[in-house]
Amino acid sequence: MTELERDSDIDKTDDDVENADIDESELSGRAGKIITLAKRRGFFWNSNEIYGGSAGFYDYGPLGTRLECNLVDIWRDIFVIQEGYAEISTPVITPEMVFSASGHLKEFTDLMVECKKCSEPFRADQLLTEHHPQPDNLNAEEVNGMLTEFGIKCPVCGGALSEAYPFNLMFKTNIGPGSKRIGYLRPETAQGMFINFHLLYRYFREKIPFGVVQIGRAFRNEISPRQGMIRLREFKMAELEYFIDPSDKSHPKYERIKGLKIPLLPAGKPQEEAKPTTVAITLEEAIEKKILGSEVMAYFIGLTYEYLNSIGLSGPSLRFRQHGEKEKAHYAEDCWDAEILTSFGWIECVGIADRSCYDIERHNEYSGHTLAVTIHHEQPIEREVKKVIVDNKALGKKFKALSVKIKAALEKLDGNKVADDGSPLKVNIDGKDYEIDRDCFEVKTVTEKEFGKKIIPHVIEPSFGLDRITFALIENSYYERESSYRVLRFKPQVAPINAGVFPLMAKPELVEVTQKCIENLKNMKLNIFYDDSGSIGRRYARMDEAGTPFCVTIDYDSLKDNTVTIRERDSTDQVRIKIANLPKILNDLIEEKLIFKEIKAA
Amino acid sequence: MTELERDSDIDKTDDDVENADIDESELSGRAGKIITLAKRRGFFWNSNEIYGGSAGFYDYGPLGTRLECNLVDIWRDIFVIQEGYAEISTPVITPEMVFSASGHLKEFTDLMVECKKCSEPFRADQLLTEHHPQPDNLNAEEVNGMLTEFGIKCPVCGGALSEAYPFNLMFKTNIGPGSKRIGYLRPETAQGMFINFHLLYRYFREKIPFGVVQIGRAFRNEISPRQGMIRLREFKMAELEYFIDPSDKSHPKYERIKGLKIPLLPAGKPQEEAKPTTVAITLEEAIEKKILGSEVMAYFIGLTYEYLNSIGLSGPSLRFRQHGEKEKAHYAEDCWDAEILTSFGWIECVGIADRSCYDIERHNEYSGHTLAVTIHHEQPIEREVKKVIVDNKALGKKFKALSVKIKAALEKLDGNKVADDGSPLKVNIDGKDYEIDRDCFEVKTVTEKEFGKKIIPHVIEPSFGLDRITFALIENSYYERESSYRVLRFKPQVAPINAGVFPLMAKPELVEVTQKCIENLKNMKLNIFYDDSGSIGRRYARMDEAGTPFCVTIDYDSLKDNTVTIRERDSTDQVRIKIANLPKILNDLIEEKLIFKEIKAA
Repeated sequence: MTELERDSDIDKTDDDVENADIDESELSGRAGKIITLAKRRGFFWNSNEIYGGSAGFYDYGPLGTRLECNLVDIWRDIFVIQEGYAEISTPVITPEMVFSASGHLKEFTDLMVECKKCSEPFRADQLLTEHHPQPDNLNAEEVNGMLTEFGIKCPVCGGALSEAYPFNLMFKTNIGPGSKRIGYLRPETAQGMFINFHLLYRYFREKIPFGVVQIGRAFRNEISPRQGMIRLREFKMAELEYFIDPSDKSHPKYERIKGLKIPLLPAGKPQEEAKPTTVAITLEEAIEKKILGSEVMAYFIGLTYEYLNSIGLSGPSLRFRQHGEKEKAHYAEDCWDAEILTSFGWIECVGIADRSCYDIERHNEYSGHTLAVTIHHEQPIEREVKKVIVDNKALGKKFKALSVKIKAALEKLDGNKVADDGSPLKVNIDGKDYEIDRDCFEVKTVTEKEFGKKIIPHVIEPSFGLDRITFALIENSYYERESSYRVLRFKPQVAPINAGVFPLMAKPELVEVTQKCIENLKNMKLNIFYDDSGSIGRRYARMDEAGTPFCVTIDYDSLKDNTVTIRERDSTDQVRIKIANLPKILNDLIEEKLIFKEIKAA
Repeated sequence: MTELERDSDIDKTDDDVENADIDESELSGRAGKIITLAKRRGFFWNSNEIYGGSAGFYDYGPLGTRLECNLVDIWRDIFVIQEGYAEISTPVITPEMVFSASGHLKEFTDLMVECKKCSEPFRADQLLTEHHPQPDNLNAEEVNGMLTEFGIKCPVCGGALSEAYPFNLMFKTNIGPGSKRIGYLRPETAQGMFINFHLLYRYFREKIPFGVVQIGRAFRNEISPRQGMIRLREFKMAELEYFIDPSDKSHPKYERIKGLKIPLLPAGKPQEEAKPTTVAITLEEAIEKKILGSEVMAYFIGLTYEYLNSIGLSGPSLRFRQHGEKEKAHYAEDCWDAEILTSFGWIECVGIADRSCYDIERHNEYSGHTLAVTIHHEQPIEREVKKVIVDNKALGKKFKALSVKIKAALEKLDGNKVADDGSPLKVNIDGKDYEIDRDCFEVKTVTEKEFGKKIIPHVIEPSFGLDRITFALIENSYYERESSYRVLRFKPQVAPINAGVFPLMAKPELVEVTQKCIENLKNMKLNIFYDDSGSIGRRYARMDEAGTPFCVTIDYDSLKDNTVTIRERDSTDQVRIKIANLPKILNDLIEEKLIFKEIKAA
């Protein structure tokens, strides 16, 4: 029953896989195999295939969509349910003003060159990879210098190249008729959270710290995207903005995570040499050694580590790398990337940045809308101040209707700066100077109470790239049991299909019992795949390629003794259990409350 | 403990609600109240408020996002888990070619007029609502005739208006540098499923019927959006494309739903007069009376009805209205809208259309990629045909290398059209004519078997507007218990917050027990809201406004006897139960396995 037949009726599609935007020469055999499997089984494929494919755009097929849904569900459980952060959802089309404020209009660019002969556009840094270890950190001047120095020509036709100039990576559109209102597709979900800060602050009853999350699409109009799922023009993110008082970078739940041992790669070390396993260290030690600057950064590195572990990404393919000075955004105080090793090398899957007060301050400034928070003092702070105290009667007598404005102007003056010599004060009202004699006011020392101070909060932002995580997970789950027998070793809670349920043969009496089983399993919201075609071995093989952790087979003995066979993907072990126990056993296996070896045979 | 204090610290935001895109005069007091509550509690609000707001764009706040998530989860459970349809996820940016094929480039327009004086743009039909019952069904000529006939002027400045002309409602952008590759933001998620038909057909092992779903954003660049959440420029949809053999519009699960009694409003009747409750009829009767044309339409009307019921939309505020001839798309064979009654009138929340073979046929034609399916005959069909049978030896001798091409050309000829007179046949190879004598071939009658036929599948499309459903649900859930005491009567599974859990006072010993309770509830993936500020009555009121079905209070008795008070939102009934039983009781209440009145007090 476990013969390893291949799936020839499906395999016929192996040859016609098209990857318009993947430079095949970049791929190791492993990546090629995974991309082929991903298309054949329905994880993902290049978009718009029937119209020739579209560089930088991918579709998620039935298994890929379900896989990503599961990754998002687990993310939500951690960040929304357990941590209690508030999820919001804002539009992708965003008016220009927001990106003027955020700096994207000016800064969200890549340096581009065009061939003067064939007009092909290129990312300038990609033409310098052989001449510089991190060419994307170079500025325009440095890039142009190197393009000249090394005599770089168009890689397509050999023609001369233009100077490098910044190309804005936001997709642009017009809102409504005409071109008066310009909109951009958001390059990150974060801005939607920043510009709603005042409403969210109120939602959290005007107390910080609090966290806001958004899960959704973002866009980056790449000049010439390659690397398939790794560099997309349209992608999905899950972002958290955690708003804090900059004078208090502790975290209330730091104790829970401080013992986690995590492979860290600090910016100080020569990064290309470091082996992540050699710098594994607890978060507490990292703080003591000043590798990490704050509890709150440590907490989110820890939480990210736990999330990645929980979906099946762990071990030596995972590390946290700190950005160097030139790499991180100009406003960022610190930034660490969770990187996963794939056929494309180490790829950034999560970025955890201390964005300081940059974003809120900019929107505060550009919108004119106060986005500050009040930090209440435990005790009001009292201080003695010199103030101008107006004699309303005397002032009113002299200045009549104008006295209201004069009083306001006088009270704004700093009492310390008013001369002691009894001379009159000058104020300017509506462009005209007035002299106010001492009989209209006096300077007194009074006690003032300050109940709190207004500050602009800082933001810690863990930002998860869902497409990269999905791809990295598929690649890290892939193994071959025998030559060309492919398995995806997904954790049961992550697998797109929870179980395959089969009648041994497509006979009505077996199909009927099978359908009844499936109905009971579906009532537990499990995703079940029914299959009655081909040998059982072939059906197992299909499920192994889809990463389905368990299969259930109904045979003629099932009709006699009400038992079914349940099979585990990785061990290929099988055990017979009572049909009546199947829903509970399967559910416990999927929730990892039960280990397959512990199942008692019926 | 149940004193009905209002929430003054939160209420202060009542006055500053801004709804840039809502024409307040259109709103009844009820809609105004709901929109105010929606913003104050964090369901939704107009986007980009700090930059003056954006017409046609809304943000979902923490409660709105969670509410919509729950609606999507229930939708997925029905359509993906129970029905077994495959969910996919495709980009919103779509190359122009796709919309040339789909017809959107030409047809997805509204008639627009501009004021010649102040340049303000208007939807032409909106200027004619007083002169025609359904002005959006008029064509350009009719609209221009009526604009002249009734002397319509600019509603803003009274200036003269331009002629009405079609304005395309897709947002346009450029993919990559330059303007060579034009992309549009999809106006529906459907096209992403159609253009992948060949891959999805293969995923379903080349058998129809099958269903594919997509949940995601779509865009419509409205000329001048009003009505807040009802008419958005960016919105969320959940769409199903169910591919069928046009010669078989039965449905395998029709029996299950045929007895559902559903308020139908067929196109034949004068629609504005009809009372939906008066035409409630079972789906079976509707088919017998030819109100519905097929089982498959009946099935999806039934499934939509069940979905809307399951989230809490039922009763006299729900009806299914058939499109009239002028209203439905030119290619649609039939279309029914699920409409819900709100302050904005009856609004379309779901459209269920028989799109015939239109979409697949168009992509088949424009892409040149075969998107047909093979319907296998139960028995191969045999027929006798006259064919040209070549004598390979004789032909090869005469024509050498050319004989291969000649043989192919001869075999393509229709045997019935070959003269009986023994004359030679003429074939043209590479532009040159050849005469082939009878010694090289003969005409014979042979028996041919046909195993199946290629057809273009038809598509039934239920398309759910998630924003409208969310809004309609909030409005239909709203009631006032006493003047200005507002409650949202959400079903427990739908409510954004599953339970509020409070210590009677913010004392450490009570808070500690409360936090322990919350931890246990969160482990069951319940969304819990902690609140320790204000009186208990005030905290209940906040939760009632958020639509939270249950609240749990920990008091000093809890410390003695390990019991807590659980309170139901709508009855305001309270009962004391053991803390140990809380997770199970709460979970059963939320899954509606347990009725509050049936809880046994500890």
